[in-house]
Amino acid sequence: MTEIISDIGEFGLIDRIHTLIREEGIETPGVTIGIGDDAAAIKHREGYELLVTCDCLVEGRHYLSDLLDPQALGRRAMTVNISDIGAMGGLPLYALVSLGLKADTPIADVESMYRGFLMELNPFKASIIGGNVTKTESVNFIDITLVGEAEQGKLMLRSSAEVGDAILVTGYPGQAVAGLQLLQRSDRPQDHKDHPLVQAYNTPKHRAREGHAVALSGHAKAMIDTSDGLLADLGHICEESGVGAELIKEQLPLSEALRQEAGQREFDPYDVVMSDSDDYELIFTCSPENVPDIRSVIASVSDVLISEIGRITQAAEKIQLILPDGNKRLVTPSGWDHFKT
Amino acid sequence: MTEIISDIGEFGLIDRIHTLIREEGIETPGVTIGIGDDAAAIKHREGYELLVTCDCLVEGRHYLSDLLDPQALGRRAMTVNISDIGAMGGLPLYALVSLGLKADTPIADVESMYRGFLMELNPFKASIIGGNVTKTESVNFIDITLVGEAEQGKLMLRSSAEVGDAILVTGYPGQAVAGLQLLQRSDRPQDHKDHPLVQAYNTPKHRAREGHAVALSGHAKAMIDTSDGLLADLGHICEESGVGAELIKEQLPLSEALRQEAGQREFDPYDVVMSDSDDYELIFTCSPENVPDIRSVIASVSDVLISEIGRITQAAEKIQLILPDGNKRLVTPSGWDHFKT
Repeated sequence: MTEIISDIGEFGLIDRIHTLIREEGIETPGVTIGIGDDAAAIKHREGYELLVTCDCLVEGRHYLSDLLDPQALGRRAMTVNISDIGAMGGLPLYALVSLGLKADTPIADVESMYRGFLMELNPFKASIIGGNVTKTESVNFIDITLVGEAEQGKLMLRSSAEVGDAILVTGYPGQAVAGLQLLQRSDRPQDHKDHPLVQAYNTPKHRAREGHAVALSGHAKAMIDTSDGLLADLGHICEESGVGAELIKEQLPLSEALRQEAGQREFDPYDVVMSDSDDYELIFTCSPENVPDIRSVIASVSDVLISEIGRITQAAEKIQLILPDGNKRLVTPSGWDHFKT
Repeated sequence: MTEIISDIGEFGLIDRIHTLIREEGIETPGVTIGIGDDAAAIKHREGYELLVTCDCLVEGRHYLSDLLDPQALGRRAMTVNISDIGAMGGLPLYALVSLGLKADTPIADVESMYRGFLMELNPFKASIIGGNVTKTESVNFIDITLVGEAEQGKLMLRSSAEVGDAILVTGYPGQAVAGLQLLQRSDRPQDHKDHPLVQAYNTPKHRAREGHAVALSGHAKAMIDTSDGLLADLGHICEESGVGAELIKEQLPLSEALRQEAGQREFDPYDVVMSDSDDYELIFTCSPENVPDIRSVIASVSDVLISEIGRITQAAEKIQLILPDGNKRLVTPSGWDHFKT
């Protein structure tokens, strides 16, 4: 019979989690007190600023448990947070994991989820230093607080884009939402597990190493991750920096998988690239003359595609899409607005 | 008509929260980047260790929304976390608030909840530096991560109690659970709002100032808060320190309100004092000769009652209760085990 949480209780579950973290996790320097006391304690390095972020995944809202196995879910939940640290120009160090779990959740699923967390943390020698588990009646949720560090004075903000800046983006935004739609349309979603769009949805990549390298180079001005979608997050940069932007439609990155899917199902793939999505790419701006330097800085840590997709303009222009015929279309950011129906 | 979250959407709600925090919160020194970017950034003081803790309240599990108004709920959620920082010997600095909210939640309730957070943070010049809001279908939850600091080398752990230590406790553990039971029994819970036991449940006190003062004095050995209940948390100290304990029943602190309630309803009030509860008092141990010093250290910051309730013994003794007739009773810690039924 499958062992579930109510078989071993909260303290039993916590013991199992601690054992897993001890055996499969990594000890991060700087942790004075790890898991097991009222709070964790850390000593911090001179010359660095601490970064703190938290993000929450709720079952049924941010993931469908029958479409995402627990390990992939764990990776996703941690990736979302690592992405936020990376978008500030930092690297992750310490995680606190707060879980809301139904009493009939299999223990093995919780352990797989933690393995997913560690798969994302271990490469950075980052570790889980605290958290808690709470019983919920109806849906599971995962709330992670991630602490990272960035070199002092090297933080990448949303508010420092300037008119004339080039706008760059990593990877292929929009793939995750296309993958989710593919799964939701299918009668047999499991058959599409290896489809590149489904993989983009199931195990999205963060760009923390790229973000950190760009920050250290000093060549970029503003940076954000695409957690709300390309347009919505470019919108955040525009709002915080008091600028506008124009995007060149033909320069938006389009993966072969998305191009094919759009061809088969007859939709404009560029709408998907700009839409709300669950990808965690980076958007950043820099002086046009610094584009080659930034490309080579990123190439030294990663082979991710870098696309130059437009320019920062005056605020009054808002966000315009330049079409292949030279006409412009005003594109209003929407983003993930979870409460409006 | 009552304005609810779905009227203004996620971004509208976030704007309202930011405005409230800006107008009614306090700026904590050390915050380089506050709310509004991908992550918050903080610079840390030399000579201090950072403490990090997180704790989650789930509607229906940790609170009943018809028995607790939103501001009291906000105070409770923050108090729970401040208590954890205090139990390590630290003081709170920065909070991240992650909310799961139903779309029909009134905006005014969310704002009241934030006022509750700030009522607890402002006296410490601590501030909210980040967080997120997520839509949930069925229940609201509040997950708070709190960052604090403690003087280097002055952390108070669970694991450093020694045989022969005196065991002390602040305040009156057990009052909160007695207050909750009183509310649950009543047909008209609102009529009991001012009852001292109900107040103990609705707005529990943390003892962070007391914990910090005790830590600085260097006189105490082990410390923990009573978030799982007096016996369960003493059990954590015993387990982590490899010791046992004996408690003297007549020395357990009993408030007049609990004594009266027990008299009317004919139960043994000491069972309630030792039981699972929602109080956030401190248990700590010290050499018997340091008890007077600790009493005067605490008296310099607070007039809370300090009771000496027993002694640390050899591990083999487990936890024994010494009855008025001199007999001993083995008392097994139970604590909040949310998943076992």
